[in-house]
Amino acid sequence: MGSYKKSLQLIIDSLRLLPGIGYKSAERIAYHLLSLEEGQVRTLANSLITARQMICVCSECGGLTASDPCSICSDEWRQRDAICVVESARDIDTIEKSGVFKGLYHSLNGLLNPLQGKGVEQIRINELMFRINNLKVAEVILALSSTVEGEATALYLAGLIAPLNVKVSRLAAGLPAGTSLEVVAPSTLAAALRHRTSFG
Amino acid sequence: MGSYKKSLQLIIDSLRLLPGIGYKSAERIAYHLLSLEEGQVRTLANSLITARQMICVCSECGGLTASDPCSICSDEWRQRDAICVVESARDIDTIEKSGVFKGLYHSLNGLLNPLQGKGVEQIRINELMFRINNLKVAEVILALSSTVEGEATALYLAGLIAPLNVKVSRLAAGLPAGTSLEVVAPSTLAAALRHRTSFG
Repeated sequence: MGSYKKSLQLIIDSLRLLPGIGYKSAERIAYHLLSLEEGQVRTLANSLITARQMICVCSECGGLTASDPCSICSDEWRQRDAICVVESARDIDTIEKSGVFKGLYHSLNGLLNPLQGKGVEQIRINELMFRINNLKVAEVILALSSTVEGEATALYLAGLIAPLNVKVSRLAAGLPAGTSLEVVAPSTLAAALRHRTSFG
Repeated sequence: MGSYKKSLQLIIDSLRLLPGIGYKSAERIAYHLLSLEEGQVRTLANSLITARQMICVCSECGGLTASDPCSICSDEWRQRDAICVVESARDIDTIEKSGVFKGLYHSLNGLLNPLQGKGVEQIRINELMFRINNLKVAEVILALSSTVEGEATALYLAGLIAPLNVKVSRLAAGLPAGTSLEVVAPSTLAAALRHRTSFG
């Protein structure tokens, strides 16, 4: 039994490192994995390794790609004087799905967060400034989360970019689509009111 | 980009097979895994395989163990005339944590669920009847979830066991309706065990 508990704990500890997996979830998944055939676990584990092997980080935008540079950075038809700055590779896909933006991206791979040891050198700010200077960028859109870290990072970047005579914009604050007023935080509502647009 | 999306989808599809992982969670975890070093992903994947390799199913109770029979089934000091019937190996650990029951366990490794193709032959009912007949069991405690499938399975088992002149009991009411065992606090479970009532 002792050794059995150790195997279980090994899986639980591994799974808890994943985002959004707490102790109870890790425990549930661990018991599930142990109830599978060894071959099935092997297949799952190998698919994780294989997928990871096939992917690298784009040396230009910092997004995920199978070949460097990624298909967005190497696409001649994209608007090359607009850069949309995001926190992570995942946000690039999310914005692409909206179908509105046709320019280039830059993933910071993080946000400024001094308490977690994330300073200016730990996220891809130098790379961003290098690209802005080299690409003759006309506009930088800061598409960062409206959290404390996102706001702080946006503020810092805006201060850095402003002297370069480049337009800096940010995502509009407002009501999410399909939301009822009663579930919206007062601060969101305040922003939505402050930035109200004329109708029609 | 095409091949990159394929790797991503490979991970997402693998993760979605795990219990409690929906599409959004799988996506979040997949992006996280792809952002790790290849070595880190390898370590995680290998720890899953290693843990699974070290574990087998106890041929007596159906619980998880590193050596067969498990430490509970081979423990001379456990009360051998009482069997606690549970749905899964995980429930054995949950009940052990409550510290009230000192007898043996029997995991059905499932519940009767005709809609999902789980009939009498698909769960470990024959094995249970064999043990009841051979171990001179005095009491069978049906510690099944208070869900439709749990109640149906308990009712079916009670009907099978009653003619054998064996006491059949169940967990005390106090378990909130529609709750699965794995989310119940050990103290609640302890009370439910202590106040178990005879069936029918």
